[in-house]
Order: sequence, then structure tokens, then C-alpha cells
Amino acid sequence: MRTIRIGMLGFGTVGTGVARLLTESKTLIEQRVGAELQLKSIADIDTRTDRGIALPPGVLINDAQKVLNDPQIDIIVETIGGETVAKTFMLQAIANGKQVVTANKALLAKHGNELIGAAARYGVDLAFEASVGGCMPIIKTLRESLVGNHIQSMIGILNGTCNYILSKITDEGITFDAALAEAQANGYAEADPSLDVDGLDAAHKLAILSGLAYGMRINFDDIYIEGISKITPLDIMFAEQFGYRIKLLAISKNHRQTVEARVHPAMIPFGNILSNVNGTLNAISVSGDAVDEILLSGHGAGMMPTASAVLGDLVDLARNLISGVSQRIPVLGFQQATIADIPIMPMAEIVTHYYFRFAALDRPGVLSKISGILGKHEISIKSVHQKGRKTNGAVPVVMLTHHAREADVSQALREIAAIDVVRDDPMVIRIEDETEEY
Amino acid sequence: MRTIRIGMLGFGTVGTGVARLLTESKTLIEQRVGAELQLKSIADIDTRTDRGIALPPGVLINDAQKVLNDPQIDIIVETIGGETVAKTFMLQAIANGKQVVTANKALLAKHGNELIGAAARYGVDLAFEASVGGCMPIIKTLRESLVGNHIQSMIGILNGTCNYILSKITDEGITFDAALAEAQANGYAEADPSLDVDGLDAAHKLAILSGLAYGMRINFDDIYIEGISKITPLDIMFAEQFGYRIKLLAISKNHRQTVEARVHPAMIPFGNILSNVNGTLNAISVSGDAVDEILLSGHGAGMMPTASAVLGDLVDLARNLISGVSQRIPVLGFQQATIADIPIMPMAEIVTHYYFRFAALDRPGVLSKISGILGKHEISIKSVHQKGRKTNGAVPVVMLTHHAREADVSQALREIAAIDVVRDDPMVIRIEDETEEY
Repeated sequence: MRTIRIGMLGFGTVGTGVARLLTESKTLIEQRVGAELQLKSIADIDTRTDRGIALPPGVLINDAQKVLNDPQIDIIVETIGGETVAKTFMLQAIANGKQVVTANKALLAKHGNELIGAAARYGVDLAFEASVGGCMPIIKTLRESLVGNHIQSMIGILNGTCNYILSKITDEGITFDAALAEAQANGYAEADPSLDVDGLDAAHKLAILSGLAYGMRINFDDIYIEGISKITPLDIMFAEQFGYRIKLLAISKNHRQTVEARVHPAMIPFGNILSNVNGTLNAISVSGDAVDEILLSGHGAGMMPTASAVLGDLVDLARNLISGVSQRIPVLGFQQATIADIPIMPMAEIVTHYYFRFAALDRPGVLSKISGILGKHEISIKSVHQKGRKTNGAVPVVMLTHHAREADVSQALREIAAIDVVRDDPMVIRIEDETEEY
Repeated sequence: MRTIRIGMLGFGTVGTGVARLLTESKTLIEQRVGAELQLKSIADIDTRTDRGIALPPGVLINDAQKVLNDPQIDIIVETIGGETVAKTFMLQAIANGKQVVTANKALLAKHGNELIGAAARYGVDLAFEASVGGCMPIIKTLRESLVGNHIQSMIGILNGTCNYILSKITDEGITFDAALAEAQANGYAEADPSLDVDGLDAAHKLAILSGLAYGMRINFDDIYIEGISKITPLDIMFAEQFGYRIKLLAISKNHRQTVEARVHPAMIPFGNILSNVNGTLNAISVSGDAVDEILLSGHGAGMMPTASAVLGDLVDLARNLISGVSQRIPVLGFQQATIADIPIMPMAEIVTHYYFRFAALDRPGVLSKISGILGKHEISIKSVHQKGRKTNGAVPVVMLTHHAREADVSQALREIAAIDVVRDDPMVIRIEDETEEY
């Protein structure tokens, strides 16, 4: 039986999961692949901590160069994270003709085009299923299964930390800060949670998915990003009353000449399966002209679900090596020469439904002032709700709109915030509801 | 640009969808594959009906042999259906060294092992993503993505007709017969609906999935099958009260030495995403030791969703042909030599929760008699509900059980049916609720 030799860079959570699967599922993998997948070397600066895995002596070393330059090693798995060392090592691995597997979404979102170009030049494969949605096979689905479809849109819950926090606020009526503290206590949020709760992590993933879905160069910089820290139990309660749940959504829509790509909290109707994806779970719904819509859901993070996705990549690459092929599928699923520079639509041009909550003084004429400004900016009001609960002396006035343009909404809200009877900045949450009339 | 030539056998609904996609997504496919996928010939006995697709002259012919024996044709797509002609043609295509794509679940469930053996012998690929779950990439997910996982169980809604009918009964409180008539009027059920409503179609799919999940020889004959025709609005209403929805489930659980494989109506809790998969949608949840659980959902049937899955297979095979490889992945995802004969557990040995509804005369002592018999057979009652609604003179007595053995339940129900105060056969619906205490 042939042996495929794997070198791993980084021995943290994901790396440990990969090592565990290669050990615990050894027989299964051999039955599937018809070859041994041998973890020959792991490089990590920490060679002392016990990760609970019995490695043969000499496997765990502290010199990445020994792994990168080992002629016996066929595949390099990068699980270091970050964008500096990881990038240098990956480019080196590619230049050395190694097949490369990574779960590093930040790196791919920001430097993916460069890495893809290098892989194409050196004729190696670059696999990254674990970078988006953990164990959900969304990358394989876009690259291989939906190939007959023009992808029209993707709506995803791509950050488990945010989904956990929003589920907690929804279920228990606690504040964002309290829910975040719980997430941290349970290991679902980092000590510095900003990458997750500010929406950056979801945006990294959306950048990668948009590249795969539309055959476009990966563009992270132009994605609109808004986090969940301003979401209050009050808004979640109002949302429930209107039949909506609030999720941090990564949304991308294909307008052919431009692409919408945005990450922000949004309300979705109870009837949408995504509204029932709770806790740390991830999910993504993809619309295409032939499939209509398909949905994938699963753990988007965690040691073993992420390792499962890495194993899928490792087996794919092993099957290529055994068959003697590489680049059987282009990295983004489109021939490199056809990858287009499709601009991301400026946020100001987005058209969607809106939820506004104003803290207004309870005086006659307030509603007329607010709705007058909205009307002036061609924002048509679907319903108005004045609930009579006083928050810091003001009454919450909630409005739902018909379709409106983001630029008009921004301008109108600036004018409304300047009215003397409106306290604080208005709360704005977009509504993704395709069941709404147009 | 290279041309991959495709021959299609059968020009019905699925065939028409495939022809449409190959035409309408021609540019997209070329951008993805770097080759032209040319539909060279279609054989169908009906060469006259207008399918709404402009085919070049000479493409649609009535002689399948011309397609099968055309040396220029690389891939044969079988969309005839049925188990006789389709099988003969597929074996012939394989023997002629053609790559083969099919959506024929009945054929694969009953003759899959023979077809797989032939493909292995002749060194060709046999692809069948469209045979299970329409556009959901469940076959690719099992064969390629979850390769690092020991699959523990699969629970699926695999028949859109049944799901539509059960959703109708749930939403509108109508009878099975009325819901079936609506399904037929809307084109979601055949004139002879038995293949769908009796559970056979879902069982065909479960047989295929079990082969892929556990690396076992496909075994359709030993799957327990029960359809949905006995489900009443009354049971659905009771289910709702207990927090359950009734779905036709295809269930498979891996006990290593044996495998559970059964298709029957079952109650699942509202908290399970599957309970929110309604209408004609399909979904499947797969549990593995690394991923925990992942879920896929989408249209399980229909012209374009099915054609989308066929296109995925065509592109996979085209990419193989371009790379000059075949059998890169074994048909069932396991090396042919490791495929095991794993027996399906007899239904009598299954352990699950049960819902019973007895039509009992409203007399003292009835409950005691029923519960006495259940107790004698070690069936522990979780709750009893006597709702007081008289159906043909009797009162429905509803019981939910803790875990019980199917053999014990069958025996107990036979004895209960024989009591003079119990009318009709008891209604039994199994409950799939992993949130239940054990």
C-alpha cells in the first residue's frame, strides 16, 4: 500500500484535531483511499505541551523549514493561522511543489489571489474546505456540485460565536455584554472577541465564497461589515412580534456586472430555515438557477468538525496524488484565465427592507416629523408601532419599511437624528424577507 | 478547447433538464471545465414531442444502440428509469468503456452491486448524485467530504411527495386522500402514487446511502418499509401537542456489526431542523464522530434540481477525462475489496420511542388493561392522554413510551387489539427524539 506523507505546520486546536483523526480513523481512511496517510512531521514552537496524542518520536519538531523542505512530504497542512508567517510558509510550500491544505480564512480573504496565482504557476493544489463553515462542505458544493448553476445569491450564518450570542439574547432576554461573557466562559468566544462579534470573520468567509460562486477575484476590502454589539433584547423582542429572528448574516447577491457582499445583523422570517439555526451552528443557503435553493448546516468551528473538513481535503489531494493528477479542478472552480474582477456594489446602492427604532419623546407631531422625512427620501413605511415602553424617558417608535435604498435611508436617518424630539441615534436593522411583496 | 461528447438515453423530464442546462449554461460550464460538454446524441422512442429545446438536427434519434456504440461518445447519461432496459443499456455502456451517469435509484438499490462490480472490472466511473435527494450533494458529501468520519447515523426526508402530503395534512387538517389528490393535481405525485407514498422510493435512496456511509454492499431487500397512507389529521394534531411533527423518515444507524435501516412515518421534535423542512423539500442529517452532525436540504426532485445534480456528475467525469484518470474515487467511496456484507438489523430488534393511539370504549378499567399488557412486555409508559373526542363511538387513548423494543411492542399491540373494549387496530407511530432521556 502506498504511503502519502503529510507535514503539518502548527499544532494548536485544529492541528491536534487533524492528528487525532489521522490516528483514530487510520483504518477507515485506508479503506477509503487505498493508501496510508502518514503524519510524518509536525512543526510547532511549542513541542512540550501534551495534546493528548501519542506521536512517534521525532514527529513533533520546532523547525518548520525541515517540514517545508522534506522531499518525502507530499502535502503540507497549514494550521498556524495569522497572515504573516502562515503566508510565507504557504508560498514556500507551493514553490517547493507541495500540495497545500489550509483552514486560514483571514489569509485567503486578504491574500488568496496571490496564493491561488502561485499554486497555478507551480502546478499544485490549494485546498481550503475548512476555511468556511467548518465541516459543512460548502466549498466542494460550490466548486463541484453546483457547477451547472449560475449562482444567484448566498445567505449564510457563518460565525458561530455571533450565532451563539444572538441565540442567548433571544432565548434569555439578556444583554449583548452578558451573552458575550457567557460565550467567553463556555469557550465560544475569544478573550478579544472583536474578530467575531464585529463581523470580520464572517466577511473573510464571504469573500472566499463569493470568489467561488461567481468566479471573481477574492475581494475582502470592499465588503460592508457591521457587527452585532449594538443588538438589544428590545430589538429581538420586537423582531419576534413581527415574525422575525435576528441573525448575523453574510449576504451576497449576483447582479452580473456587480456583486452585493455584506455582513450585518438582519431579521429573517420564522419560515426561513436559517431562522431555526441556533447556538454555535453555521448554515448557508445558496440560490442557483437550476437548484432553486439548497441549504447546508453544521458546526462551523471546533476542533473535530474543522479537522473533519481538513481530512476531506487531505483525502482529495491523496486521491489526486495516487491518480497522478494535480489541478484537476482549478482553485476557485473556474479556469484561472476566466476569473473576473467583478466590483462589489457600494453599500449605498443596496435595496432592502428596514426596521427602524427611534427613541422619541412622547409629544404630538413626532410621528409626522419622522414619517415626513422618510417620505421625502422615498422611503415607504409598511407599518408603525408605538409600544409605550419608556426607555430613558423616550418612547420607542418602531417602523418597518418597504424596499428602500440604503443611501436614502442613511440620509433620512441623519436628518431624523437631528430632530430635537429624537433621542440617541436611531437603531437600524435590515430585513431579509423574500416573502415580502415588492 | 477539448470537446467531451455526451450521449443521453431517455429524453423525459430529467433528460430535458440536462439538455437545457448543457445549452443554457454552456459558457459557464466551459469557464469551469476548460472544455466543451457537447450533447452529441439523445436516444428516445419518442422523437416527435417538442421538449422546448432547439437541438441541432440528428441529435435526437430513436436507436439507443447508436449512442451506446458511438466511439466518439465519452459519457453516457441514463435517464430512462425502470430496471430492465436501463440496466441492460448501462451494463452495455460500461462494457463499452463509457463513463456512466444515472439518476435511477430503483436500479441502483436493486442492482447497484452488479453495476458497481461491472464498472470496477471495466475501469470506468459510475456517477449517481441525482439518484438521492435531487440537488442536495449528499453522495459527494459522503464519498468525499466526510471521509474522516465513522458515520454513526443518517436521518432523512428523502421523498418530496410524502413530505408535501404530510405538510398539507399538518397545515390544513385534511385527510391523506385529500392531500394526495392535491399532490396529484399539482404534479407532485404520480397517478399511481404507491412508489412514493408506500415508502419504496425513500427506501431505494436509503439503500444507496447506507452503502456509501458504511462501505457496505447495497441491500434494499432487508430495509423495513412503511408508508404514510394511514397517517390521520388526528395523529398529526396529537403530535403537535407533544411538540412533534410527523415526517416520513429514512433512518439508518450504524451498530458496527449490524446496521439499522428503516423507512416509516415518525415524530420528530420541533427543535430538530428536519421538522421545519416542509412541502416538497428533502433534507438529510448525517452524524459522524468528527462532525457531530451536518444537515443538507434542497429540492429532492423536479426537472432542474435533478438536472443540476446530473451536471455535477458530468463535470466531475469530464474533469477526470481531461486529467486522464478514471476511478479516482471508488464508486461507493471505499476500495472495492473492503466493501463488507453488513447485515441489516431485523426490525424486531429496533429500540425507539413509540406513540400509540387506541380507539377504546369509554369504560372503567380499559386503561388498566392496556397498561397492564404494556407493562408485561416491559414497555414503560411516559405519558397517557385521554382526550375525550369520540371517533366512531370510541375515545382515543394516546400513550407515549420510553425506549422500547419493537418486538415487544408488536406482541403487546397484538394482545391489546384483542381486548374486547379496543376498537380497530391501534395506531403506532415511532418517535425519533434524541433529546429524550434514556
